[in-house]
Amino acid sequence: MVILGIDPGTTRVGYGLIRKEAGGLQHLASGLFPIPPGDLSSRLFSLHAEAKKMLVSARPDRAGIEQLYFFKNQKTAIEVAEARGVLLFTLAEAGVPIVEITPLQVKLGVAGSGNASKKAVASMVFRFLGITPRSLPDDVTDALAVAIAVSGNVLSR
Amino acid sequence: MVILGIDPGTTRVGYGLIRKEAGGLQHLASGLFPIPPGDLSSRLFSLHAEAKKMLVSARPDRAGIEQLYFFKNQKTAIEVAEARGVLLFTLAEAGVPIVEITPLQVKLGVAGSGNASKKAVASMVFRFLGITPRSLPDDVTDALAVAIAVSGNVLSR
Repeated sequence: MVILGIDPGTTRVGYGLIRKEAGGLQHLASGLFPIPPGDLSSRLFSLHAEAKKMLVSARPDRAGIEQLYFFKNQKTAIEVAEARGVLLFTLAEAGVPIVEITPLQVKLGVAGSGNASKKAVASMVFRFLGITPRSLPDDVTDALAVAIAVSGNVLSR
Repeated sequence: MVILGIDPGTTRVGYGLIRKEAGGLQHLASGLFPIPPGDLSSRLFSLHAEAKKMLVSARPDRAGIEQLYFFKNQKTAIEVAEARGVLLFTLAEAGVPIVEITPLQVKLGVAGSGNASKKAVASMVFRFLGITPRSLPDDVTDALAVAIAVSGNVLSR
């Protein structure tokens, strides 16, 4: 089973693809969708095109995306939500089942505690996937964490 | 010139189409996009399908959509922003130039004052379009107000 995790942001969106097998989890691909600068609607247009291209090529069986909760900066929250809306549409268009997951569930699922630090989560992401710790952009590590947490939910069902 | 106004909401989205001619403004069509109940991603999928169908048939020259500002209820703001993201994408996909307009600019453009009441705005919407005052859903009246305000901006350029 191939699981996609997505971390939506205002100017960049991280994604992480993992495979869940009997032996554990395997890192398939991860990165940032390239979104050329421009006005909001053209960035959303590019985001859809990039996400669709990846979905067509990777064909994930399931996608996880974080729910948005309270933000200090409401302007940021609104911009992230606009990108998230386009991503949810793109997943529905591609027929990929979506798991919405809270930030708490991600921390619990990856590092065993809802109070886990960003560093602890990153460390567990590298450990789960058997890849050498390296400095990935936060958005990519977060997207992989979402995919790992979703894989655990799938396991426990 | 055909101008579309959109009022994005969480469970329903109002739209209003007007034509701007030498003699003034003319009401072409208005209503709510039908969005069947379901989970968020399937509602966003339906919203895209309905908006796209309307754009293909009406071929507006320009579309106005309100910017989102501060909300009392952050959950509502996020849900509206998700719908707004899909609408902006759909407009970009259809190649319709977008005018983002503030609620203040809508009130100023339609009723002459940034403090205009909802009732005053509705009354001016009916007057501008030469249609009999009637009880349209708020979302539809608001969408027509956006279209009218955008038509004034177009005029003044």
